[in-house]
Amino acid sequence: MHAYRSHTCGDLTAAHAGETVRLSGWVHRVRDHGGVLFVDLRDHYGMTQVLADSDSPAFAAMDRLRAETVVRIDGRVKLRDASLVNAKLPTGEIEVYATEIEVLGPADELPLPVFGDQEYPEETRLAYRFLDLRRESLHDNIMLRSRVIRSIRNRMWDQGFTEFQTPIITASSPEGARDFLVPSRLHPGKFYALPQAPQQFKQLIMVAGFDRYFQIAPCFRDEDPRADRSPTDFYQLDMEMSFVEQEDVFATIQPVIQGVFEEFGTKPDGTHRPVDADWPRIPYAEALLKYGTDKPDLRNPIEMQVVSDHFRGSGFGIFAKLLEQDGIEIRAIPAPGGGSRKFADRMNAFAQAQGLPGMGYIFWRTGTNDEGLGSSEYEQFVAGIEQGDIPANLRQQIIESFRTSEPQKEALTKIQRLSSSGDALDKLEAKSLAERCFAYTRLEAAGPIAKALGPEKTEAIRTQLGLGEGDAVFFLGGKPEQFEAVAGRARTEIGRELGLIDENQFKFAWIVDFPMYEKTDDGRIDFSHNPFSMPQGGLEALNGDPLQVKGYQYDLACNGYELISGAIRNHKPEIMFKAFELAGYPASEVEKRFGGMVKAFRYGAPPHGGCAAGIDRIVMLLADEANIRQVIMFPMNQRAEDLMMGAPSEPTNEQLRELRLRVLPRE
Amino acid sequence: MHAYRSHTCGDLTAAHAGETVRLSGWVHRVRDHGGVLFVDLRDHYGMTQVLADSDSPAFAAMDRLRAETVVRIDGRVKLRDASLVNAKLPTGEIEVYATEIEVLGPADELPLPVFGDQEYPEETRLAYRFLDLRRESLHDNIMLRSRVIRSIRNRMWDQGFTEFQTPIITASSPEGARDFLVPSRLHPGKFYALPQAPQQFKQLIMVAGFDRYFQIAPCFRDEDPRADRSPTDFYQLDMEMSFVEQEDVFATIQPVIQGVFEEFGTKPDGTHRPVDADWPRIPYAEALLKYGTDKPDLRNPIEMQVVSDHFRGSGFGIFAKLLEQDGIEIRAIPAPGGGSRKFADRMNAFAQAQGLPGMGYIFWRTGTNDEGLGSSEYEQFVAGIEQGDIPANLRQQIIESFRTSEPQKEALTKIQRLSSSGDALDKLEAKSLAERCFAYTRLEAAGPIAKALGPEKTEAIRTQLGLGEGDAVFFLGGKPEQFEAVAGRARTEIGRELGLIDENQFKFAWIVDFPMYEKTDDGRIDFSHNPFSMPQGGLEALNGDPLQVKGYQYDLACNGYELISGAIRNHKPEIMFKAFELAGYPASEVEKRFGGMVKAFRYGAPPHGGCAAGIDRIVMLLADEANIRQVIMFPMNQRAEDLMMGAPSEPTNEQLRELRLRVLPRE
Repeated sequence: MHAYRSHTCGDLTAAHAGETVRLSGWVHRVRDHGGVLFVDLRDHYGMTQVLADSDSPAFAAMDRLRAETVVRIDGRVKLRDASLVNAKLPTGEIEVYATEIEVLGPADELPLPVFGDQEYPEETRLAYRFLDLRRESLHDNIMLRSRVIRSIRNRMWDQGFTEFQTPIITASSPEGARDFLVPSRLHPGKFYALPQAPQQFKQLIMVAGFDRYFQIAPCFRDEDPRADRSPTDFYQLDMEMSFVEQEDVFATIQPVIQGVFEEFGTKPDGTHRPVDADWPRIPYAEALLKYGTDKPDLRNPIEMQVVSDHFRGSGFGIFAKLLEQDGIEIRAIPAPGGGSRKFADRMNAFAQAQGLPGMGYIFWRTGTNDEGLGSSEYEQFVAGIEQGDIPANLRQQIIESFRTSEPQKEALTKIQRLSSSGDALDKLEAKSLAERCFAYTRLEAAGPIAKALGPEKTEAIRTQLGLGEGDAVFFLGGKPEQFEAVAGRARTEIGRELGLIDENQFKFAWIVDFPMYEKTDDGRIDFSHNPFSMPQGGLEALNGDPLQVKGYQYDLACNGYELISGAIRNHKPEIMFKAFELAGYPASEVEKRFGGMVKAFRYGAPPHGGCAAGIDRIVMLLADEANIRQVIMFPMNQRAEDLMMGAPSEPTNEQLRELRLRVLPRE
Repeated sequence: MHAYRSHTCGDLTAAHAGETVRLSGWVHRVRDHGGVLFVDLRDHYGMTQVLADSDSPAFAAMDRLRAETVVRIDGRVKLRDASLVNAKLPTGEIEVYATEIEVLGPADELPLPVFGDQEYPEETRLAYRFLDLRRESLHDNIMLRSRVIRSIRNRMWDQGFTEFQTPIITASSPEGARDFLVPSRLHPGKFYALPQAPQQFKQLIMVAGFDRYFQIAPCFRDEDPRADRSPTDFYQLDMEMSFVEQEDVFATIQPVIQGVFEEFGTKPDGTHRPVDADWPRIPYAEALLKYGTDKPDLRNPIEMQVVSDHFRGSGFGIFAKLLEQDGIEIRAIPAPGGGSRKFADRMNAFAQAQGLPGMGYIFWRTGTNDEGLGSSEYEQFVAGIEQGDIPANLRQQIIESFRTSEPQKEALTKIQRLSSSGDALDKLEAKSLAERCFAYTRLEAAGPIAKALGPEKTEAIRTQLGLGEGDAVFFLGGKPEQFEAVAGRARTEIGRELGLIDENQFKFAWIVDFPMYEKTDDGRIDFSHNPFSMPQGGLEALNGDPLQVKGYQYDLACNGYELISGAIRNHKPEIMFKAFELAGYPASEVEKRFGGMVKAFRYGAPPHGGCAAGIDRIVMLLADEANIRQVIMFPMNQRAEDLMMGAPSEPTNEQLRELRLRVLPRE
């Protein structure tokens, strides 16, 4: 027999009853049932119940076992009594009667239990990561991550891509973050850098004539601590293709990402999370307007709209006055179902907490509107439907009550048509429509803005946004760039509070037409995103207003996260130099910083483009985890320390001497 | 039609004749055949012949094309004349008559041609790596590397392994080389290290309860320049398993490696290289004795032997005197077919060039040995075979001439049996044996050692080594550790010179039973290989003579290279502390250097083991390349510089300030 096991702890079923077996694993739990000892023996594959009574030669040894001890157990497989069968466990039909136990790896008292779901401080969990990783949920996450990466690799190969490793110890490759530097011993005083992304290398691979590259690539960025990202490194699916346009990249990567989400979308508890196959292209400017962000969560049905015109010259002085300035917009966040003062006040407080003076609002409720029609009119009306003949004066009265609302007028026409039908179902539908119509006549717009605007403008806003009784709308005004981000967060908050978001689905959107440039705070023009993207319109476009230039640059948003970022690259040196010049970088600087790539572009560069997808983020979405450290085997803490291995640490003098470095004292 | 291509340059066949197509690619070569221009258009997938005559609107544009320009070409597919079909090219049946050409990426004059096989200095090739990579052989190597890695991954998954990424920015993990350090900005004065191997992490993964881990892992070692290795980093197939013994690891990894070699063993020119499925286990000591190295090339049939006894007290004074000391051995390198003074002298010179005083030798030739039998006896003997009756006196004479040689006596018995058979083939075999026997009687041992030893000892050596006419033997004497390495190289040289090595095959061997410790030059005891290996015999063995302790440690040798190194690990803290104590490391030092792992072993560690296989080496063997830079996409040069990207380079003052570092002036 094998020294350690004839079967894993997930193998044994009723078919093995009567066999002599050998298992090895961790003591998950010991229970003493009055002279019979039970051990749940756990390994990577599963859990098996082992028992011993006082007749067993293994009894004494089992009695001494501490949780998480590693043991080898020899024994006989027994069927459990029918009443004791555990249908949830693959091995739940049997148990193993132990005849011999050998301790292979003893365990001290645990700083962190493995059995049970007790919460422990993250610092303890990181210091004893090897224990935390034995817990089922983390173990499952790490296995999921591995399977996701495997699936991505296979899907990329299936699409004709080849994986290449690009250098890790290399030159600085500025991507907007700080480089990690690596001092050179052979060239003291000089430093390598760890790549922030394989951007230049993958472009060089295209110039070298390989057609479709991908890599599950480690990327290194010396970031300041932030909760949802690793402070040192992360992995991305990096890909690049030659002889393609933007839509080719989309057509290539969508099946990969969609396929992975479909493959792993079902949660461990069996919850199915559908993956929307419709990936709309949303221009950057439209995304900011509708969603207040370039990574919108499309599970949230709320779309913001511009409502400036309704406020121009209106009785709501604050907005009316604001609108006299240039570049001001009033935007509305519709909140279907949010029509209560309590909710409106809560959202207003949310906006204040986000640093805005507040959010004005209107909400609609069934009121005591004098123009409204009462129950006696309703009864007359319904009688008219029954008889197929609605009295003309009543119809006229209703039309007046509907004020400007076209949908209601259409509803009335429909009621009339339905009521003249002989069909009972048609009459039923007509009565249901009538009920909504009558409620509508009693609608009351509440809140100070409604009062200030007056009924006509208020109604115009309601009509534009398609809102009704029980709904609300929130307003934000000013320069869009100053409130857009908060508007986006408010949209999310409103959607969540009102239960409008179906959490159990994945919705994607390509955000396209990113601007190439932006104005910095000090009024300069700088790249707003990736300087290597091809400007739409090429060299000619760069001769106009830089702020109007859009790039062939795109992001993929999924459920409110940026999952992918990419671009069609600028492979023409003359356009590249011009593009950098506009951002204030002279040719010499470009040559210095990106010399390797620019040189390559002079010797036959193909048009090319690609993207990079965040692996950690994909796994977080699939594992339904908000903390990135829950999907990394051995993560840093937020202070960029490895508490288990003790990194970073002080170097030896010998190491510093070899590198010709001195550490300066704190200033 | 797609903006860049309807087909790749490898797609078009006779089936496409008449179609209008669009191709994009690099101008491999332009030829002017008297008014008709031919372009070989190349992309990742193949090469297509494009032509234009003066009737074509594309003629003028084509006439201006420079090599390596990237173009889009529209045209019509034409069948080639039967006489012009190129059967070697998948697209060789057709050509494309160009109607439109667009330059997508112009090319300056090339510093390095892509077309043709002209050799260029490696520094130029590295500086213009993107051009060198367009050349067919390097392009093929890089594609091979990628496919090999993919195959390895799939084979590991098929064996039930899961791939996990371990940290790259981490703590120092001493593996016998220098660490690359990474200064921490958030913790100035402290440094991370890049892992020399994921050794500790993979052991922690086992302690964390994952059963079978692998990774295609980047490893970072700050090495001094050496021709056959990368000075900064390399990739290995790193794997680890729980609850296993040494033979389990062998049984797991052999199908992976053997499978990869079988899958990719055939050279691009069609040469089949068989993969030997028999992987012998050779103890370390035996490998050194037989092959002079722990990474023997078993394609070379030569095995060295100890021949000390023949020299003890013999007439060959140098060795006889040497053997009076302790620890001296005389070893013989048999050289079948090396039996000429010229060859012997050349090998002697080889040994001198390697720093030894020389190699003594004996060789055997057909001589004028008086005891030998002549042609008249041979004719009588053959006549006896024909008649099925060899005269008894002749047989006696032959036996005497054979002296001590048992094989020859056996041959004679066989001759007698065969000659009494009626079968003509048997008689033929008997005559062939007889020819060898008679030649043998005329053998003469040549060289000064034979003279000094005398015929009896010389013959004993010949018999021990199984040598004969036309063969030679070389001798090395002294303390084995002082000549073993040279002996190994001499064995290789002899095998190669004599054409004994079939280059077109792969032969593997597991080298096992490595010693745990060795004596250093200054007489201390230190680990001879991996300090994390489990000593054979456990704690008890460590209480004896350390130099006698063997580890459960193993290497896989293939064709003279170390392909894999691995061990069953020491997972018991008490044995680990004892093992380190013997090598002079106090417990405090172990805790400091390997604290994370030692701590983990106290909380239930499973027995585990694994290995790491060198990816670059595997690809080098398969690609038949001796230069590691031929199998890496973007390699460093031997001075650890990236000539294309310009690394390492000087940091900015701002970077140094953030890291609180100062570069000291050269001493």
